Amino acid sequence: MTDIQQALEQVVWYENGAVCMIDQTLLPAQEQIIMCASLESLWEAIKMLRVRGAPAIGVAAAWGAALAADLSPASTTDEVLRDVERGCDYLATSRPTAVNLFWALNRMRAAAAVNAHLAPAAFRTCLRTEAAAIVAENDATCRAISRQGAQLFKDGDRVITHCNAGGLACANRYGTALGTLLWAHEEGKRIEVFANETRPLLQGARLTAYELQKHGIPVTLICDNMAAYVMRRRGVTAVIFGADRIAANGDTANKIGSYGLACLAQAHRIPVYVAAPMSTFDFSLATGKEIPIEERAAEEVSAWGGAATAPAGVLVCNPAFDVTPAKLISAIICEHGVVRPPFTENLKALRQ
Amino acid sequence: MTDIQQALEQVVWYENGAVCMIDQTLLPAQEQIIMCASLESLWEAIKMLRVRGAPAIGVAAAWGAALAADLSPASTTDEVLRDVERGCDYLATSRPTAVNLFWALNRMRAAAAVNAHLAPAAFRTCLRTEAAAIVAENDATCRAISRQGAQLFKDGDRVITHCNAGGLACANRYGTALGTLLWAHEEGKRIEVFANETRPLLQGARLTAYELQKHGIPVTLICDNMAAYVMRRRGVTAVIFGADRIAANGDTANKIGSYGLACLAQAHRIPVYVAAPMSTFDFSLATGKEIPIEERAAEEVSAWGGAATAPAGVLVCNPAFDVTPAKLISAIICEHGVVRPPFTENLKALRQ
Repeated sequence: MTDIQQALEQVVWYENGAVCMIDQTLLPAQEQIIMCASLESLWEAIKMLRVRGAPAIGVAAAWGAALAADLSPASTTDEVLRDVERGCDYLATSRPTAVNLFWALNRMRAAAAVNAHLAPAAFRTCLRTEAAAIVAENDATCRAISRQGAQLFKDGDRVITHCNAGGLACANRYGTALGTLLWAHEEGKRIEVFANETRPLLQGARLTAYELQKHGIPVTLICDNMAAYVMRRRGVTAVIFGADRIAANGDTANKIGSYGLACLAQAHRIPVYVAAPMSTFDFSLATGKEIPIEERAAEEVSAWGGAATAPAGVLVCNPAFDVTPAKLISAIICEHGVVRPPFTENLKALRQ
Repeated sequence: MTDIQQALEQVVWYENGAVCMIDQTLLPAQEQIIMCASLESLWEAIKMLRVRGAPAIGVAAAWGAALAADLSPASTTDEVLRDVERGCDYLATSRPTAVNLFWALNRMRAAAAVNAHLAPAAFRTCLRTEAAAIVAENDATCRAISRQGAQLFKDGDRVITHCNAGGLACANRYGTALGTLLWAHEEGKRIEVFANETRPLLQGARLTAYELQKHGIPVTLICDNMAAYVMRRRGVTAVIFGADRIAANGDTANKIGSYGLACLAQAHRIPVYVAAPMSTFDFSLATGKEIPIEERAAEEVSAWGGAATAPAGVLVCNPAFDVTPAKLISAIICEHGVVRPPFTENLKALRQ
């Protein structure tokens, strides 16, 4: 596959004995596809964020387990299995805080264990089939979120997004939050998007603006501090973003800035939507107060491309996430449908 | 003057036949003083933002008019006057939208006209005296704002600032919004500041964090989209920023992002203060709706150090300012005191 439009439908895929992907660190300036034919090159790609976004990392890791089997020179299934397990252990060290990485690797390990009685060739095929199943389930989940979320939007809507919860993050055409807008666009609704650039790492400028432009959806890039201005002067009708973790009461952890954006939406009487798969829900947490907030490196804020933009030694606050209280959220869209408040009751009903 | 701490007390000054200043484009990485011994080098310094901030530009221009007289080789006052007028015309082209530039140059022209009967040496002295008077009045205004604004703060306050309304912008020790915090600090109150980096041009990171650090005031740099998080989790007690223009009803135009910050403050029940000299008030405007908003170049948002950070051709919204409605403002501090709502009546009283 060399056509970039076609590559964007998958983001990460397995072809000719290599895990292939769009190198997201080069976007939007360069659209380059890299082929990881060794576990070392795949490990580097995950580590260096060439693939990022929880579902996309999971897909890359799943194909990595299949790759480990295909690369194994062993002639017995037991030996191939050992190489797969070693490969999974190794890939798990690439991003030790990525929950989806472990989830996907554990699922591949389980598939390997269950199929260890097969001959080596059949065993290898089973692992490729399991990775393909993870891809297909992920794709179905994103499509279900996108299709159902699209019903929240009408012709002429103007929507602010934050960070990137699009196809690039999810390894398929739609993604989650951006998928709802893409689906609405494909239904013929005119949707206009204002993309928050999303400091400090600019995923909105680099990835969301890029994806929307590719899909032909009108997009205007703004600095995060312009959201209130755009709400007041440009007739914004909705805000939508993804989620990293959702508590049982609907409190939602997402990229830093989501909470402030939700506050501004409330002040302007604009609905706030969250789009995320069921795998994001953590029913063990009663509220968002229990969600720990990762503090990231000061240099992400105080420097740019290696050059300081602030005085040496200045204190920096750089939380990766914030928590939007459920009371600021109008609806949560998951693969099972659109959930409205009261979230505690309505999310519990989904589980059953 | 070569000591940087001492230079920060003045920012722009006249010494040995040259207009001297801290080159603000090199801050915070380099603390370099430049000496403009020609009108051309001063013109370039204003044009290239080596000096920025309305009052500071006015001070630089006033010294420029005095410099024009001192540089004039003429032997009659009529001829020196003509060189001063030519110099003022020339300096006025450096930043054609800077109101304070014209105000200062016109005041210097008036002083020149009034003193044209004097001998050349006395005439030149009069122009230097007039520029010094502008500096002294500006300094007195900033001190009055800082002293009275400081009374709004108490020991232990945690304050969010936006952009830079400090000494660097105002060509003196205090400035306006930052001056209130510096005065409170000098009164012995423990004040902690969270400085919004202020995208797209990062005046908060580059200048505000630098100034506060120099003054020994604890400062933490944050991305603009972290303000809500900090309000909720770090016990912020106030927001303060400067103003570019204030309408008769108190509606305040200031750097983009001020309006959103004020909305967030209201949502968290935190007071919002505006600090600005009377020269900022435009009583010809009934409300802020009449304030035109300058749209700046897309590249300020979509590129960084010349390298694109967003896809080519993406639409960008880049307003220089936004308008904070008076109803979100708890008090406006000017040199005559602290003005509380209702602003229309209370500001009118100040004028009388």
